[in-house]
Amino acid sequence: MVSEKIRNMMDSSSFIRKMFETGAKLKQEFGSENVYDFSLGNPAMDPPEIFTKILLEKAADHHMHRYMPNAGYLDVREKVAEYISSEQETAVTANNIVMTSGAGGALNTILKTIINPGDKIIASIPCFMEYKFYCDNHGGELNLVNGKDDFNLDIEAIETAITEKTAAVIINSPNNPSGRIYPKETLDSLAAMLNKKSKETGRTIYLISDEPYRKIVYNNITVPSVMDTYKNSVVCTSYSKDLSVPGERIGWLAVNPVAEDYENLINGIILCNRILGYVNAPALMQRTIAELQGVSVDINLYKNKRDILAKKLAEFGFKFKIPDGTFYFFVEAPGGFDMKLVDLLKEERILVVPGRGFSLPGYFRIAYCVDDSVIEGSMAGFKRTAEKLGLKQE
Amino acid sequence: MVSEKIRNMMDSSSFIRKMFETGAKLKQEFGSENVYDFSLGNPAMDPPEIFTKILLEKAADHHMHRYMPNAGYLDVREKVAEYISSEQETAVTANNIVMTSGAGGALNTILKTIINPGDKIIASIPCFMEYKFYCDNHGGELNLVNGKDDFNLDIEAIETAITEKTAAVIINSPNNPSGRIYPKETLDSLAAMLNKKSKETGRTIYLISDEPYRKIVYNNITVPSVMDTYKNSVVCTSYSKDLSVPGERIGWLAVNPVAEDYENLINGIILCNRILGYVNAPALMQRTIAELQGVSVDINLYKNKRDILAKKLAEFGFKFKIPDGTFYFFVEAPGGFDMKLVDLLKEERILVVPGRGFSLPGYFRIAYCVDDSVIEGSMAGFKRTAEKLGLKQE
Repeated sequence: MVSEKIRNMMDSSSFIRKMFETGAKLKQEFGSENVYDFSLGNPAMDPPEIFTKILLEKAADHHMHRYMPNAGYLDVREKVAEYISSEQETAVTANNIVMTSGAGGALNTILKTIINPGDKIIASIPCFMEYKFYCDNHGGELNLVNGKDDFNLDIEAIETAITEKTAAVIINSPNNPSGRIYPKETLDSLAAMLNKKSKETGRTIYLISDEPYRKIVYNNITVPSVMDTYKNSVVCTSYSKDLSVPGERIGWLAVNPVAEDYENLINGIILCNRILGYVNAPALMQRTIAELQGVSVDINLYKNKRDILAKKLAEFGFKFKIPDGTFYFFVEAPGGFDMKLVDLLKEERILVVPGRGFSLPGYFRIAYCVDDSVIEGSMAGFKRTAEKLGLKQE
Repeated sequence: MVSEKIRNMMDSSSFIRKMFETGAKLKQEFGSENVYDFSLGNPAMDPPEIFTKILLEKAADHHMHRYMPNAGYLDVREKVAEYISSEQETAVTANNIVMTSGAGGALNTILKTIINPGDKIIASIPCFMEYKFYCDNHGGELNLVNGKDDFNLDIEAIETAITEKTAAVIINSPNNPSGRIYPKETLDSLAAMLNKKSKETGRTIYLISDEPYRKIVYNNITVPSVMDTYKNSVVCTSYSKDLSVPGERIGWLAVNPVAEDYENLINGIILCNRILGYVNAPALMQRTIAELQGVSVDINLYKNKRDILAKKLAEFGFKFKIPDGTFYFFVEAPGGFDMKLVDLLKEERILVVPGRGFSLPGYFRIAYCVDDSVIEGSMAGFKRTAEKLGLKQE
């Protein structure tokens, strides 16, 4: 029979499943063009044209579908290393990189490598809740701490949570769901605190930086580098969001070359990438993204969507912070009732995710990686919902 | 730091790593064309031409790289289901299939779904030793039992090993490394025994059938179906070997539609495929293999390699059973000293895997999925090694 843990997980995750089922039913009943689905970070935008051009070139080579080293093709890792050396302001080589099955693969691989039974991994609320599963997969436990009101990290809260059991802190900047980018000064404080606490606990606390939205930022903001800031850092990312190819499962993991216990760490990661059954990142996609370093979809298209939504939602009386990055709005649920808001929006055939899906009830998330028609079509429904709630229109 | 478990795994797997390192060093020193590498199941053969044709067609579609349901595209699963309904002699539908990141992804997904802490999974020696890691990943333990001298399953040995802690039996037919195909009568006995023991222990014992070599068989042998034989069966496979695309990580898992606790089982598997970080099988490869059901590389080319090797190895005095399937020979190490044999062959720049890599010292494995030139080039070295060992030549 199914294991007890998985049965419990299915029960507890049933509210999300129910949400999707309701969405599917709405689409069946009213036609998917009449349902405004903002629930998933699944970009509707096509990949850049150059992606398909390179993909076709690589796919024409009949010979390149065999196993390669578990870390990935050497020449692919060289190209990635060259690019991220500038992005992370740290000299990274091919040997510091492991190509992975997306960021999900990268996160599971590093977590398996470092977690001893009962270890804790700290993350800041609000956050992507798959982290909880990823820690649990390897015998660890996600330890959530509150962030600040402006969604920045609360360094003191993280410090208070650290014990000898703390194996790592995961951060995600730009953040899903808040869109927040953690400033350089925050990362500096985090690094200083982690250095201090690592000494105190006698244990290296790794900083795992999950960065799939790094290129989806607005107003020329640069996402500060963790590698440049903290030596025991590991960067995980994917091409899912910036190239609009989430179904292809391609990403990488980079270990700071000055990390303590470096040799064991990188060899452990390569072993775990293999034994978790990933074996290696998909071959053809490795060869394709190698030629697309620094390429992304047109971020201005996301900026337009953001700006249209921001203007309208504010007009209707919703409260939120304009995201600096990602394609998410994290909007206050009036009165703090996220589920009520989700239900009211559902009556308007608008699908969003309640804040509790990110451990922060009192908000709801709008994923605006959708066609403009979805945004336009949803406006009347958002307006009516605001009116029902008696929000003060601008 | 790296977890204790992973550090131990790195230490204990170091003999395999050392083997690869020695191989790499030999290739550097003598040129890779002068090293005869039979160590990996990494087909040198190109995929069939139709694979590249379909791949290019699918890759030209710019729109198809998004997330799809975690189980995979519905239309892909429909095509797979149609094909395997005939292959497995069981009416399977799209709902019974989950597309996976190769057989490694499929095995990890089903194991995570069913393992409670401390559960045992039984497998028969000789076997693919990654199973050990795959069970351990999810808190289970691989329980190895001896097979028969002809490499068939020993049903009594399996029966003796079963306790209340037994969650599943994994079989692999055609078998890596022995090439053995378990006959219908053996599967029938296994099914009868598992039904009896499930009743006795009060627990459903699943049969997990790992079948990546199903299409690589000789002399028109058909691999008997487990689905037709045992209701609580799950089939895992990949296109890695039969289409020569192991680097692409594409496979599937099929749950017998009449399995007990079916709804929980399939939903648990879909959840685990997601939370293990696979999320879904690579999108483009799903769409490609959908059009290639029943297609494989030309098996006659493997048969020729097998026959040449068999003739020569027998001439030199090596003892082995002719494999009915796979591209492996599992050869007796004279005197039972597998490591000695491996070392002697290394002096001839021939790389093979010792039997202990499959929990059966006393043998060594030759993976003949190599170019004919590798086979030809190695013959003098095999001959000299046989002479050194004083084997009686035919």
